[in-house]
Amino acid sequence: MTNMTDLERYLHRQIPLSAAMQVSVLEATGRSVTLGAPLEPNINHKSTIFGGSASAVAILAAWALLHVRLLEEGLASEIVIQSNRMDYDRPIGGAFTATSSLADPDAWPQFVNTLTRRKRARVEVQSVLTFEDAIAGRLSGRFVAFLRET
Amino acid sequence: MTNMTDLERYLHRQIPLSAAMQVSVLEATGRSVTLGAPLEPNINHKSTIFGGSASAVAILAAWALLHVRLLEEGLASEIVIQSNRMDYDRPIGGAFTATSSLADPDAWPQFVNTLTRRKRARVEVQSVLTFEDAIAGRLSGRFVAFLRET
Repeated sequence: MTNMTDLERYLHRQIPLSAAMQVSVLEATGRSVTLGAPLEPNINHKSTIFGGSASAVAILAAWALLHVRLLEEGLASEIVIQSNRMDYDRPIGGAFTATSSLADPDAWPQFVNTLTRRKRARVEVQSVLTFEDAIAGRLSGRFVAFLRET
Repeated sequence: MTNMTDLERYLHRQIPLSAAMQVSVLEATGRSVTLGAPLEPNINHKSTIFGGSASAVAILAAWALLHVRLLEEGLASEIVIQSNRMDYDRPIGGAFTATSSLADPDAWPQFVNTLTRRKRARVEVQSVLTFEDAIAGRLSGRFVAFLRET
């Protein structure tokens, strides 16, 4: 179990847009990270969540999961997004959450193995956006991790 | 030729995250919209542009192009993103731009026709991110426009 306050502080400090979007860490385990964000700083011309905010919070949740898991593995690394697909299933009219998980949890040991041997490895992470207990959007992202020289 | 100051003011007012990202309108014609954004408010833990910011500015450029073109057509409408694919080709280490264009300019008359008849229509828009004169990212987005009842 990760210290959620530490993770939130890390995100706000390292990625100031997460503070501007008022992103909070609602849950962070090895399996998933759930972030929350309110409507006001992320609103659009239709008084719903701006697609760019929805996408950015989904990316952040996915990135944070890899950050947390690699810390747990004791692997100092840098994680960069390579590509993503995002579906906006329905308008989000208020505070929403983004919950990330590995696209294929069984592929994790192989990912860690490759990262350790080759100093870089790719992994797929998904995030699901929820608004009023229903799925409102889905992100599928491909990330690459680089082992930091220590 | 659209009044760029008006468009910038509109974006900042309607989508406050665009102000937080310090997005500026660099060019806006019927063919394309170019937005710019600086590093500082969009920085990440690697001192490059946060993927969520890159994606959000690319979405905003695509959305703004449709906004401008539909205004020019005299069609009061609302434009919503349905899905997008984003490729992050290389790290962006400073101020960058996003330039949008229609994926298929020849499909525009059909789009306008459908929008007028059926009150809704879909269209594909692409955005290219540029940093130091090289392509740094590419977005391909699908949008749906709804004709506003007047």
